[in-house]
Amino acid sequence: MKKSIFFILLIIVQIQVSFAQLADLERIEPMNWWVGFKDQSLQLLVRGNNIADKTVSLNYPGVKLVNVQKVENSNYLFVNLLISSTTKSGTFPINFVKKGEKTLSYQYELKSRVKQKRGVTNQDFIYLIMPDRFANGDVSNDQIAGMRDKKFNRDSMYFRHGGDIQGIINQLPYLQDLGVTALWLNPVLENDENRTSYHGYANTENYKVDRRLGTNELYKKLVDECHKRGMKMIKDLVHNHIGDQHFLYQDQPAKDWFHQWPKYTGTTYKDQTLFDPYAAKADKKIMTDGWFDRHMPDVDQKNSLVKKYITQSHIWWIEYAGLDGFRLDTYAYNDRDYMAEWAKDIAKEYPDFTYFGETWVNGTANQVFFTEGNTANQKFDTGLQAVTDFQTYFAINEALNGKFGWTDGVNRLYSVLASDYQYKDPTRNVVFLDNHDISRFYSVVNEDFNKFKSGIILLLSLRGIPQMYYGTEILMKNYANPDGKVREDFPGGWPNDKINKFIPAGRNEKENEAFNFVKTLANYRKQNSVLQNGKMMQFVPENGIYVYFRYNEEKTVLVVMNSNEKEEVLKTERFEERIGNCKSAKNIITNEKIAIETLKLPAKTTYIFELQ
Amino acid sequence: MKKSIFFILLIIVQIQVSFAQLADLERIEPMNWWVGFKDQSLQLLVRGNNIADKTVSLNYPGVKLVNVQKVENSNYLFVNLLISSTTKSGTFPINFVKKGEKTLSYQYELKSRVKQKRGVTNQDFIYLIMPDRFANGDVSNDQIAGMRDKKFNRDSMYFRHGGDIQGIINQLPYLQDLGVTALWLNPVLENDENRTSYHGYANTENYKVDRRLGTNELYKKLVDECHKRGMKMIKDLVHNHIGDQHFLYQDQPAKDWFHQWPKYTGTTYKDQTLFDPYAAKADKKIMTDGWFDRHMPDVDQKNSLVKKYITQSHIWWIEYAGLDGFRLDTYAYNDRDYMAEWAKDIAKEYPDFTYFGETWVNGTANQVFFTEGNTANQKFDTGLQAVTDFQTYFAINEALNGKFGWTDGVNRLYSVLASDYQYKDPTRNVVFLDNHDISRFYSVVNEDFNKFKSGIILLLSLRGIPQMYYGTEILMKNYANPDGKVREDFPGGWPNDKINKFIPAGRNEKENEAFNFVKTLANYRKQNSVLQNGKMMQFVPENGIYVYFRYNEEKTVLVVMNSNEKEEVLKTERFEERIGNCKSAKNIITNEKIAIETLKLPAKTTYIFELQ
Repeated sequence: MKKSIFFILLIIVQIQVSFAQLADLERIEPMNWWVGFKDQSLQLLVRGNNIADKTVSLNYPGVKLVNVQKVENSNYLFVNLLISSTTKSGTFPINFVKKGEKTLSYQYELKSRVKQKRGVTNQDFIYLIMPDRFANGDVSNDQIAGMRDKKFNRDSMYFRHGGDIQGIINQLPYLQDLGVTALWLNPVLENDENRTSYHGYANTENYKVDRRLGTNELYKKLVDECHKRGMKMIKDLVHNHIGDQHFLYQDQPAKDWFHQWPKYTGTTYKDQTLFDPYAAKADKKIMTDGWFDRHMPDVDQKNSLVKKYITQSHIWWIEYAGLDGFRLDTYAYNDRDYMAEWAKDIAKEYPDFTYFGETWVNGTANQVFFTEGNTANQKFDTGLQAVTDFQTYFAINEALNGKFGWTDGVNRLYSVLASDYQYKDPTRNVVFLDNHDISRFYSVVNEDFNKFKSGIILLLSLRGIPQMYYGTEILMKNYANPDGKVREDFPGGWPNDKINKFIPAGRNEKENEAFNFVKTLANYRKQNSVLQNGKMMQFVPENGIYVYFRYNEEKTVLVVMNSNEKEEVLKTERFEERIGNCKSAKNIITNEKIAIETLKLPAKTTYIFELQ
Repeated sequence: MKKSIFFILLIIVQIQVSFAQLADLERIEPMNWWVGFKDQSLQLLVRGNNIADKTVSLNYPGVKLVNVQKVENSNYLFVNLLISSTTKSGTFPINFVKKGEKTLSYQYELKSRVKQKRGVTNQDFIYLIMPDRFANGDVSNDQIAGMRDKKFNRDSMYFRHGGDIQGIINQLPYLQDLGVTALWLNPVLENDENRTSYHGYANTENYKVDRRLGTNELYKKLVDECHKRGMKMIKDLVHNHIGDQHFLYQDQPAKDWFHQWPKYTGTTYKDQTLFDPYAAKADKKIMTDGWFDRHMPDVDQKNSLVKKYITQSHIWWIEYAGLDGFRLDTYAYNDRDYMAEWAKDIAKEYPDFTYFGETWVNGTANQVFFTEGNTANQKFDTGLQAVTDFQTYFAINEALNGKFGWTDGVNRLYSVLASDYQYKDPTRNVVFLDNHDISRFYSVVNEDFNKFKSGIILLLSLRGIPQMYYGTEILMKNYANPDGKVREDFPGGWPNDKINKFIPAGRNEKENEAFNFVKTLANYRKQNSVLQNGKMMQFVPENGIYVYFRYNEEKTVLVVMNSNEKEEVLKTERFEERIGNCKSAKNIITNEKIAIETLKLPAKTTYIFELQ
């Protein structure tokens, strides 16, 4: 997310202190754990009214109580355990004792781990859903008594609309039909904020799905349903900040859990301060420690208790829900050291797990800085496998909308891909045409259907992991100004919607054509490894025509893009290196077979062929 | 140089074969050598009519005749010698013998080397001169009988104008007064081409100064005169190609000395093909082996004879003339392996010697690829110390002419400098506002004098080695379309010029103000190491105002640029990290002392202060 997003939220929310109601043993987090992790340490956050006054005891074979840490706030205790490698699964009480008071007890469960193959790769096609805006499968949870945000109205773009996890479960057949193989949902953790709680980026719990979206169990069911269909689940994580109504902010364990400023200080959103050899310390500090937004307290990730709390919650979710990947929100704003440590901690338990960071920056040098293996002049490795590839996103737009020139039009895309030499592995980067923060693709190409189809071809045939934003396949439009405009409901997702674009009959001709275009290519990609992990070869664009190939031992796919305003005729002999003696090809969309020695290319059109 | 430059030259020149006139022993190159090099090998190119039929002999203590190599063309021999470390300087005959023919003999001299401190650093201020266009100190050499290019007319931009080395010698006091500490001349080697021989980039000899500019001896005298004034000399080298009238092309030693194509094939000028992980072999080959221009044969730098011939000539010039640095023309078009080898060969003999490559590319990732220490995903080091920094050039223009935005205006400059993290040492990069190939700076800023002064401040206070193009200090103008327009004569450089802008009386008021502005700042820079190698600190631009510092233990210089169209008032407390308790500063240009707590900044104006 970026600074423009929350401009309507610059109202200082009233802090609702709820100390008085705190139970004697309000919670222990993680609520349970598993045996068999490589990291044998487990740190329990215990919260309860003056819990720090009590003594902790437990007795279970293979579980050692290492120590108990107190903090400034007596409502918290941190209990450090060691779970030995031979510990058996089971349940045991943890007791909190104080002389003259009733002993408090918590039944702690250590479960057995379930083995699962994980990881999202370039074999996948990711579909991004904003859960409140996709489909409402359970109207009973639209409004929950006692939750703060009372604004529920589908006509207002910043109010809640009622979409939920059940709605997504209901639409899995639609998504599978489209060729989707992985879902990325905007965060589903509880966002019990006063306003604009719908987007999910201001969590108030770390271990609980928002009740307006469903339950933890339902989320796990969604993941299971996905897996049954060969689809994967990517969870959206926010390390950098939490919602200001989070209990950890309302009742802070200690001041050093957050970046505290004498007066509100927002980040400058300037990634440059992180790598600039000439940066001022003050600028670096504001970038990292300044708040992303007034109602999102910035977590201090140098605090070891904070680090353990966040990382453990992520491991908990992988294991609990059976996740396949993480998308890391506002990656650049986090503490660099912590994020590198976090990546190691995740990889230690789940070597095949995937995580990619949101790096909304401008320029290859800026983006590559955050990625694994980029050790240019620094003895530091972020460990970040991949990024949301904003540089190809910008370049695709320029290729489709710009005028061909030395650095412009398709030459921009050609050049950005050429700079892939700077990545350890660019094929893991996530390619996209739009997402929840930026203008919808069909609007960006000015509703030019040829350009739309060109974009879909690029998305699904360039190197990397393609990601589509919900509704792009049915030509949903709007500019992200304000961003609520690109978070409209998917028509047909609500029980009484008059139009249902989840079914062919609900879509107009052009929308069906768009849907089928995506479906055809996504399913071709799903069935043909050549578009997944085939090698890529691109040729220097000439006369506004851009040509590239994906190829492996079995197949060769040729993509030809005419970015000009007029028809062009292209002789393909220049591409002999990949075409060889091949004389014909199949249009992957239409199945038409054509001769390829000379190609007639209509204005502003892209073709994708499989050589025959 | 770039593709647009030679568009008027696309006439295939008639090949003038001169086999018939070839003398029996036409030349030996290098004509002499020195004792005491670390590399003991010396390879003599011997050219003469059927010289290959003769046997070579010599006899001198410490000189071993290793072998004699023949090539396709019997007019050449390559004689490999070893000069042992104990060899004394002296002269000895090399004999070429054939039974029944007269023995040919060449007196070969091995000289003693003269020790000299070398290297151009960020202590310097480079002034770039196109010798034909700066000053005509010797009208007797304007036209030389027997040379091919008969076009001599100062009114025609592509004809010769008569400027020469003596002219430069005459103007050294002017340059010294301006604060210049190093000269870079466009190539001075003989360009005995049929047309447009004036620019110097199509040499027809590797060891001879063009007679229309002077002699080798006069060039050496110029270097000596420079050294006497504490000024240095940078020689402009073209590794990639030669002029098509070069004897080595007219009478080729072997076909594999040049990149031969079935029909004329020009380079695509696409640097991306060199680093693109997806590049086609064909595209790579055309980039490197395609000709830069029709009349500039592309040298095959994989040929070991070619490599030795070129490298030796460079070492010869360093030693002969006492050079301080090289500028490497069209760096990207050369063979990558050879250039890395070349850099090592130069550094072996002259560890403190400076060389920087012309890398006219777009984007930091593109530029940094060519520089030393950039080993991103490749086990290869170019060894290139520095580049002509086109990325800061583009960014300075944007800072001066663009509108402030998230990535635009001064934010562009801020961001490009931040990406310096990718260089092993960005402080060696050559910063410039214009050169012989691009539009003159005063035109680029639309003759806005405030912007002109801003540019001069940036040039002389940013990190790196500043380079000025002749005439910029007197507001010479024009756009590089065509490029001849930016290569006009310096007024006053010719004996009968009515206006002489080398002297204050010849300059109008604004020109004198410009000259004095440069002079004041260049001389301040010359006297104050803080602007040479002081550390740099830049702050995130806010509201169109860009602030940076140069600082060392002795001094702190503050540069403040208001890029807005209106006056701004700036509170400086944000810069406490560098300003500390300092309350006042001296304007380096005006010597005025001011309070700095709050600065009033006129529209589109830059100030440079020394904190007091």
